[in-house]
Amino acid sequence: MSGSNFGKVLQLTTFGESHGVGLGAVLDGFPAGMALSEADIQVYLDRRRPGSTTMGTTRQEADRVELLSGVFEGRTTGTPIAMLVRNTAQRSGDYNTISQLYRPGHADYGFDSRFGLRDWRGGGRSSGRETIGRVAAGAVCAKLLGEMGIELTAYTCAIGDIRVDPVRFDREFLQHSATAMPDPIADEQAVALVQKLREQGDSIGSAVACRITGVPAGLGDPVFDKLDARFAQALMSIGAVKSVSVGDGAAVTTARGSENNDAFLPAAENAGSLRKATNHSGGILGGISDGSDILLQACFKPTPSISLPQQTVNRDGIPADIEIHGRHDPVIAPRAAVVVETMCAIVLLDAMLSRMCTRADDVISFYGRR
Amino acid sequence: MSGSNFGKVLQLTTFGESHGVGLGAVLDGFPAGMALSEADIQVYLDRRRPGSTTMGTTRQEADRVELLSGVFEGRTTGTPIAMLVRNTAQRSGDYNTISQLYRPGHADYGFDSRFGLRDWRGGGRSSGRETIGRVAAGAVCAKLLGEMGIELTAYTCAIGDIRVDPVRFDREFLQHSATAMPDPIADEQAVALVQKLREQGDSIGSAVACRITGVPAGLGDPVFDKLDARFAQALMSIGAVKSVSVGDGAAVTTARGSENNDAFLPAAENAGSLRKATNHSGGILGGISDGSDILLQACFKPTPSISLPQQTVNRDGIPADIEIHGRHDPVIAPRAAVVVETMCAIVLLDAMLSRMCTRADDVISFYGRR
Amino acid sequence: MSGSNFGKVLQLTTFGESHGVGLGAVLDGFPAGMALSEADIQVYLDRRRPGSTTMGTTRQEADRVELLSGVFEGRTTGTPIAMLVRNTAQRSGDYNTISQLYRPGHADYGFDSRFGLRDWRGGGRSSGRETIGRVAAGAVCAKLLGEMGIELTAYTCAIGDIRVDPVRFDREFLQHSATAMPDPIADEQAVALVQKLREQGDSIGSAVACRITGVPAGLGDPVFDKLDARFAQALMSIGAVKSVSVGDGAAVTTARGSENNDAFLPAAENAGSLRKATNHSGGILGGISDGSDILLQACFKPTPSISLPQQTVNRDGIPADIEIHGRHDPVIAPRAAVVVETMCAIVLLDAMLSRMCTRADDVISFYGRR
Amino acid sequence: MSGSNFGKVLQLTTFGESHGVGLGAVLDGFPAGMALSEADIQVYLDRRRPGSTTMGTTRQEADRVELLSGVFEGRTTGTPIAMLVRNTAQRSGDYNTISQLYRPGHADYGFDSRFGLRDWRGGGRSSGRETIGRVAAGAVCAKLLGEMGIELTAYTCAIGDIRVDPVRFDREFLQHSATAMPDPIADEQAVALVQKLREQGDSIGSAVACRITGVPAGLGDPVFDKLDARFAQALMSIGAVKSVSVGDGAAVTTARGSENNDAFLPAAENAGSLRKATNHSGGILGGISDGSDILLQACFKPTPSISLPQQTVNRDGIPADIEIHGRHDPVIAPRAAVVVETMCAIVLLDAMLSRMCTRADDVISFYGRR
Repeated sequence: MSGSNFGKVLQLTTFGESHGVGLGAVLDGFPAGMALSEADIQVYLDRRRPGSTTMGTTRQEADRVELLSGVFEGRTTGTPIAMLVRNTAQRSGDYNTISQLYRPGHADYGFDSRFGLRDWRGGGRSSGRETIGRVAAGAVCAKLLGEMGIELTAYTCAIGDIRVDPVRFDREFLQHSATAMPDPIADEQAVALVQKLREQGDSIGSAVACRITGVPAGLGDPVFDKLDARFAQALMSIGAVKSVSVGDGAAVTTARGSENNDAFLPAAENAGSLRKATNHSGGILGGISDGSDILLQACFKPTPSISLPQQTVNRDGIPADIEIHGRHDPVIAPRAAVVVETMCAIVLLDAMLSRMCTRADDVISFYGRR
Repeated sequence: MSGSNFGKVLQLTTFGESHGVGLGAVLDGFPAGMALSEADIQVYLDRRRPGSTTMGTTRQEADRVELLSGVFEGRTTGTPIAMLVRNTAQRSGDYNTISQLYRPGHADYGFDSRFGLRDWRGGGRSSGRETIGRVAAGAVCAKLLGEMGIELTAYTCAIGDIRVDPVRFDREFLQHSATAMPDPIADEQAVALVQKLREQGDSIGSAVACRITGVPAGLGDPVFDKLDARFAQALMSIGAVKSVSVGDGAAVTTARGSENNDAFLPAAENAGSLRKATNHSGGILGGISDGSDILLQACFKPTPSISLPQQTVNRDGIPADIEIHGRHDPVIAPRAAVVVETMCAIVLLDAMLSRMCTRADDVISFYGRR
Repeated sequence: MSGSNFGKVLQLTTFGESHGVGLGAVLDGFPAGMALSEADIQVYLDRRRPGSTTMGTTRQEADRVELLSGVFEGRTTGTPIAMLVRNTAQRSGDYNTISQLYRPGHADYGFDSRFGLRDWRGGGRSSGRETIGRVAAGAVCAKLLGEMGIELTAYTCAIGDIRVDPVRFDREFLQHSATAMPDPIADEQAVALVQKLREQGDSIGSAVACRITGVPAGLGDPVFDKLDARFAQALMSIGAVKSVSVGDGAAVTTARGSENNDAFLPAAENAGSLRKATNHSGGILGGISDGSDILLQACFKPTPSISLPQQTVNRDGIPADIEIHGRHDPVIAPRAAVVVETMCAIVLLDAMLSRMCTRADDVISFYGRR
Repeated sequence: MSGSNFGKVLQLTTFGESHGVGLGAVLDGFPAGMALSEADIQVYLDRRRPGSTTMGTTRQEADRVELLSGVFEGRTTGTPIAMLVRNTAQRSGDYNTISQLYRPGHADYGFDSRFGLRDWRGGGRSSGRETIGRVAAGAVCAKLLGEMGIELTAYTCAIGDIRVDPVRFDREFLQHSATAMPDPIADEQAVALVQKLREQGDSIGSAVACRITGVPAGLGDPVFDKLDARFAQALMSIGAVKSVSVGDGAAVTTARGSENNDAFLPAAENAGSLRKATNHSGGILGGISDGSDILLQACFKPTPSISLPQQTVNRDGIPADIEIHGRHDPVIAPRAAVVVETMCAIVLLDAMLSRMCTRADDVISFYGRR
C-alpha cells in the first residue's frame, strides 16, 4: 500500500534508502513560473547534512541535489519537479552484524512483519536519510512562501532538560548554532551534555519548535484536513517524533476557558487579518488559520542507535545481545529542525493553494479575468 | 477544497451542521459480509450524546441513526454505508445574538475568512455535533475489529489538574462514570470541579487516552502514512485537540536512549508477535505497529463557549463584548472519549486492510486460492 | 476498497441501492456562496426519472431530493452538500425469482465474485438508480458553470441504426423529445423502433453525445489527469457504457495528420482563447482544453434486462433459463443523457478549480489581494 | 494541481521532459518480495524505443533504465521503486524555430494557457517520451501478473484502413513485426503505407488492441472506479488517444440485447470463474471483471508533427506558417502498443490488490493466520 505520497493540491512523493543508489522526491502540482535552481534546494539540504553541526554523525556526505525535471530556463514549469541525491558514502559493512537482529527502538521488526524482508543497510527506508526527499521538496515550497512574506523558523527548543529560554532567542546565533538552539547558553550546555552521552554510548531526547509568520487567515480544510491535522500528520511522520502540539499544546489540559481563549482585536491598518490579544491557539482555531503566527512543536525520542549493550531477539526469535556501533547522532533535533521546517512549508503551501478555490465569487472572477 | 474525506482503503466522508437538517457519514470500502444493525451504531452514538453523562450539556437529542445504504439482509454488502442522524432539538434562537460576532476560541472568524460566509447556528459545521458522523462510522469499524479480538478503550485521563491514577483503573466503573474517567476518586473530584466552573461560567481543559489491545505487528505505511502519523491526523482533526502523543509522548524529550528503547523478547507461545520488556514506544516503532498495545493521548483545550464576558470584534471589525449562553459542556473529554475511540478504530482498520496487499506471496496465494 | 468517490478538488461520494432506503450524494469542495435550492437539483433529477419520457420504464417514482447539509440561507457554505432521494416505489417481489440467478449482461456475478453476497433487489448498487447521486451533484456543478457562461448539452445521438442528423439539430425540440434526440424525424423513427423491441421483449443499443460551450483554454492536469482522461473515466463509469470518445473519436484511425490537425487562428476580439479552423480535436489537445467546444460521445449497450428467455447459471453453477420481467427501458440513452451531462459538469468544474492554482503569479496575486 | 500520479493501492508517479535531464517513475505500493532487475524493465523499454521498429523515428536513444530504490538483494522491498532513464540524444536545436509557434494538433497552446510558459523542447512534458515512466512501471506490474498466469498482449490492430485480420493472428510474428501488427500481410501493407506518408510529409491514424487472459472474476470497485472506468482513464491519458472501448465497443450501439448479452455457462473443471458462451462484454460486466478475457481498444490520432506546411499563430497571436521537421513517426500505434499494455498491467494489478480486502471473512482469515 502506498504511503510515500503526501499532500492534496501539491503532492510530494519520496523514494530511496539509506544505502541504496540514492534518495529523492517528486513534487507535483507546484505552480509554474517561479525561479528555481539547485542552489535554492542545496541550502536546505546542507542544514540537515551530517557534519553540518558539531552534534552530527561523523558520516560525511556531500548530499548534492540534482534537478531532474520540472524546471526550464530557470523557472518551474508546473510539471513534476524531480530531485535526486545520490548516496556516496555507504559503508554497509557497518551493518552486516545486525542484519539478523532487531534493533530496539527501530523499525526493523515492523518492516519484517509487514514486508517479509527488509533492506537492513542503515535502516533502509526507515533511515533518517529518508528525510532528504522531504527537505528538498520543502525547500522549493519555502521559496514561494518567502516570496509572499511568509517565513518559517524551526529550531531545537529542548535537549533533555535543557530548554531554550525565549528571552534569549537569537536568530543570528541560530544560523551557526551547533545544536540548532537559538540560545547561546542553552546551546553550550547542550553541547556538553551530548558530548557526555556520546562518550557513554547513550543518547537523549529533544524537541523542535516551529514558528510561521505572515500567515493569512482562512487556511485549512474542515474537517479531517484541518490545518493542524495536516501539520500533525506531517510532523508525526518524521522518524522518532512521539508528540505533536499546536500553540499551548498539552498545557491546555489544565487551562481555563477564560485564560485559553484569545480575545479578538481589530486588524491593524493595512493588515489582512484580525489581531488577537494573545495566541494560545498557536494561530489555528477550529482547524483554520486565524492570521496569528502559527506555533508548532514536535518531541523526538532519543536516538535509538546506542552503543550500550541491549537485549533483543534475532529474526528467528532467539534472544541475543546487541551493541550498535557506527555513525549516529546522540540527539535528533539539531538535524531534524530543518525537516520540521520544510514539512511545515509543504503543508502550508498546499493549504494556500487549496484556499484559492473555496469561494464561488473567486472562481467567477478568476475566469472572468480571462 | 474537499476536507471531509478521510482514509485510504476505507474512506469516510462526513457531512452536516449543528442546526441543519442532520448529520451523517458515508463509509466506503468497508468489507462485505459483516452483520450490522442500527443498534450496533446507536450504542456508540449514545456515548457521545449530550446528557449521557452528568457532565453533558442540557441539550437533549435522541440522535437516532438511520442506515441508508450498504446493508442487505443484516449484512454489509461492500458498497457505501450511509448513515444519517436528523437534528431534532435545534434552538437557533440561542445563537441569533452572536451571528455577527466572532466568538473567541471558535472557528467563526476562520470560516468567514475562508468561505466568505458561515452557518453561524451552533457553530454550523465546526460544532461538536460534527463528530456524529465519525462516531457512527467508527462504530462500524470497531465491530469488525472486535471480531478479530482487537479492543479499543478510550477514557478521560485528565480534567484540569485531576488525573486518573493508573492503579485505580476500573473498567467496570468506566461504563457508568459521569466523566468517562475510569477512577472513582478522580471522577468524584472532577465532577465537583466541573460543577464549580459551570457556576462560574468558565470551562477547563482535559485529556483523553486510548489503549488498543490485540494489535498485530506490521501495520502502517511508511513514510507519510506511518501508523502514528495517521493517528495524529485523525485525533488532531477532532475539534479542540491541541496535542497528540504516542506512548511516552512528550516525556521522551528528557529520556535517554538506554531508558526509552524497549528490549525485544521472544514471542509468547502461540502468539503472533514478539513481546517487549517495556512499551515506551506505545506500540508503534518507525511508524509500524510492533505488536504491543497501542497507547495514544489527545489533549483538549477548555470549551471555548463560556458565559463570562469576553472581548471580541464583529464581522465589520468593530470591538464588541460577548457572553455566550446556551447548552455547553464546561469540559470536552467526557463526551469526546468515544470520538477518540472511534477515530482510532477507523485508522486501525484502514491500516489492517492496507496490510493485506503488501507482500507478493500473499497476493499470489490469495489468487491461487481461487 | 472505496470506489464511490470521484474528483480531485471537488469530491463526489455517492451511496445507495435501487431498493434500499434511498440514494444520495455528498459533494465536498464545492465553492461557497452560490445560491442553491432543491429546485435547482430537482430539474435535473426529473430529466432522468422513469416516465419522464415515453421511452421510460413504467416505474413511477417522485425521486424528490432533500438537501441535508452544506446550504445556509439559500447559499452554499463550502462544506459538504449532502443530498438524499428516498426510494418510494420498490417492488422487490419482482426480483425474488432471480435472486439465485446470474442475469446475463448484468453485474450480478461480478458482485458475488467480489463481495461474496449482493443486494439482488433491482440490481442493488449496480442499478441505473445509482446515477441519482451523480445527477444531483452534477446539477449543482452545472449551475456554477452556467454562471460563467459554460453550457453543457447532452443528447441521444443514436438508437440502433437511427442517428441524429446534425442539420436537423433542434434545441427546442430536445426539451420535449421522448428519446432525448434533438431531431424530430429521428425521434419519431426511434420511438417506433423502441416500441417494436418492447413488444418483442428485446432491447437496443444507443449513444449519447455531449457538447460543452464556453470552455476556457488551459483546463486539464497532465499527464494522468488529462481532461479527456477524466472525462473518459467519468463516462465509462456510467453503467452500460462500452466506448468513450473525444472529438472525431475512432474516426481518427483512418485520418491523415494533414486532415486531423486543427489550424490555429487568432482569437476573436474580446475572446480569451485562440480560434481553430476546425475542431477535430473536440476541444482537447494533449489533454488540455484548447478553448474550442468540447465534444464527447459515449456508446451504451442495449439494456441487458430483456424478457426473451436466456441461458444462464445459478449461484451454485447449475445451468438455468431466465426471463426478466419488470419495468425496464428497452434503450438506455434517453434517460442516460442527463447522467452524461452532469458527469461532464463535475469533471469540468473540478478541472476549473484545479486550474486556479497552477501559476505562481496567480498565487502571489491572490494572496497579495488580501 | 497534481496530475502525474495514478492508481489507488498501487500509485505511480512519473516525471520528466523530452529534452530535460531524464524521465522516470516512482511506483509506490508494489508488493514486497518479487525478484526484480533492471533487465526485467529494459525489455519493455526496448519495445517503445525509437528505432525498435522500422516505423520508428530515426532518433536513436539507448533509454537505459536505472533502478534507484525499492529493490534489495534482487527483490522488491515494498518501498517505492524509483526508476530513471536519462536523456542522451537531445537535439533541442531542432525545436528552436518553433519555440514561439503553436504546433497544430499539439499541446503547446494548452500548456501556455495553463502554466504561462512551457518547455518547448520536443514537446517537453507532452512528448511521447513521457510514456517512458509508464512503461517502466508497467513492466514491473506485468512481471507479478505473469507469475499469476495473467498475460497481456497489446498490438496494433489498425493503421489507416489496414486492419489486422483475426484469422491471421500470429503471436510469433508479433515479436518481430515492424508495425506491432500480428498479421504479416497487414504488416507489409502498413509498412508500405507509412513509407509513402513519410515521403509525403504526412501521417496516419491507428489503433491498438489489448487482450488480457487469465483474469479472475471480481475485479473493479463500483461505482466510479469500475474496472473499465480505470482502463478508460489509463488509456485516454496516453497522448493522441481519442477513443477507448471495451469488448464490442461502439458496435453495441446497433446491437440488440438478445445478441449482446453473453450467456453464462458453468465453470470448467478446476476453473475459478464461470464461462460465457460469448464475450461481447470484453470481460467486464457492470464494471467488474467476469472471468473472461479482457478486451480493450484505443484509437490514436495521426502524429500531429508533419512536415507539410500548416497554418497557425505565434505566442503573440499573429498568424504564421509552420513546417515541422525532425524525427517523428508517421504513425503512433507501433510504439504505443507497449504503452497500452503496460498501462493495462498497472490498472489490473491495482484492481487485484484492491480486491484482497473486500470481504470481512478474508480479513478475518488473513489476521487469523497470524
